[in-house]
Amino acid sequence: MRNIKLIVEYDGTNYAGWQRQNNVITIQQRVEEAVEIVTGNFSEVTGSSRTDAGVHAKGFVCNFYTESKIPSSNFKKALNSFLPEDIVIINSKEVDEKFHSRFDSLGKRYIYTIVTGAERPAIGRNYVYYFHRNLDMEKMKEASKYFLGTHDFSAFKKTGSSVKTSVRTIKELQIVKEEKTIKFSIVGDGFLYNMVRIIVGTLLEVGVGRFSPEYIVDIIKSKDRSKAGKSVPASGLCLEEVYY
Amino acid sequence: MRNIKLIVEYDGTNYAGWQRQNNVITIQQRVEEAVEIVTGNFSEVTGSSRTDAGVHAKGFVCNFYTESKIPSSNFKKALNSFLPEDIVIINSKEVDEKFHSRFDSLGKRYIYTIVTGAERPAIGRNYVYYFHRNLDMEKMKEASKYFLGTHDFSAFKKTGSSVKTSVRTIKELQIVKEEKTIKFSIVGDGFLYNMVRIIVGTLLEVGVGRFSPEYIVDIIKSKDRSKAGKSVPASGLCLEEVYY
Repeated sequence: MRNIKLIVEYDGTNYAGWQRQNNVITIQQRVEEAVEIVTGNFSEVTGSSRTDAGVHAKGFVCNFYTESKIPSSNFKKALNSFLPEDIVIINSKEVDEKFHSRFDSLGKRYIYTIVTGAERPAIGRNYVYYFHRNLDMEKMKEASKYFLGTHDFSAFKKTGSSVKTSVRTIKELQIVKEEKTIKFSIVGDGFLYNMVRIIVGTLLEVGVGRFSPEYIVDIIKSKDRSKAGKSVPASGLCLEEVYY
Repeated sequence: MRNIKLIVEYDGTNYAGWQRQNNVITIQQRVEEAVEIVTGNFSEVTGSSRTDAGVHAKGFVCNFYTESKIPSSNFKKALNSFLPEDIVIINSKEVDEKFHSRFDSLGKRYIYTIVTGAERPAIGRNYVYYFHRNLDMEKMKEASKYFLGTHDFSAFKKTGSSVKTSVRTIKELQIVKEEKTIKFSIVGDGFLYNMVRIIVGTLLEVGVGRFSPEYIVDIIKSKDRSKAGKSVPASGLCLEEVYY
């Protein structure tokens, strides 16, 4: 069997996330439907992660097995012609039979985008989170350093989500402001459920002055979800890249 | 009667343009509905221009007359709470009773955005026009100079549109490329129906090598719509600012 790796960009606004579920439309379902049309057979398409409803991706990775003889680089064009306009295959490539988009991932980069200013934006509103309060950039940058490294991030995962371990490594966390837009770029070896959104929500508490930058250390130590900030909305989140 | 001037940002994707029409939803209608809720009376809201279906605006201007005693700067907040998320009032201000958003306009800036690259974009697709062919930036910039100044732009208006005169003045036409995005920024004292979109479509013909830059002079002289390029899609167009 051939193993085909895809890189996918999607606008998650109208989807209930990546993973196939009953009674709602997901990106996985749309990609599997396109694969079935193009190859003539159903193949399960394995994603690098579950993304939540409303979350976007510029570099989502997934793979599927097929007997189809279509040259691997042609899958891109063929699939795109059967995908809706909010999903697009950026790249298709045949990979080693053992390649698994989730298990083999070494890390991911997410970007969370906030727009500040006096009024909520109309244009591009589905790709950002509008936050009207003033934010202290220096304090947020200072706070962001405390997330770096390997920690038990239990305080930064959605309550009720069960995983073997909540230990993760954050390799990079950069906060950049350009006019009204603030981007939080975060690279880690893996992320717990809602982890990026809770980290950003916690940094906003620092930005408005409710938490001191050093308080991040206490929150991490506490392993207590209720100590951290809110989970910010899905619309601002985009999976930029998956590393192998 | 008080005369209230509004600056409006909107995402035109789901609207049949600014101007009120039967059987379709327009931005004018939504703003008039909000004004009626807030003031208690229907007021016609006069726009600075008609924008087409799917065209966006960051700085659309309109005005309406009212007896309402609401402080003029409060209209913004009040209207925004009754407007859908794809329309937002950026500014509200009481102006001279004689101010007319269309007749008093001295000029407008539009930006048309193209995205190039190997694949159509999924994210932000409603705000751009995806053009997959290579474009010669230098040739397009050279061609853009021939539009500057005062000309009869009959070749650059939708056939069938009737106006007193097709003479308009283009004050500025800049083309800027940043990574995959090309922005055409154009300032004029006024624009004919579809004029910006036909100018951009004609510059694309230059960019792909079908027209020489100097051929713009001949097209303008011809006053013949069939000589110019295609009208590019509405999605890429945004009314940035109206000057008074």
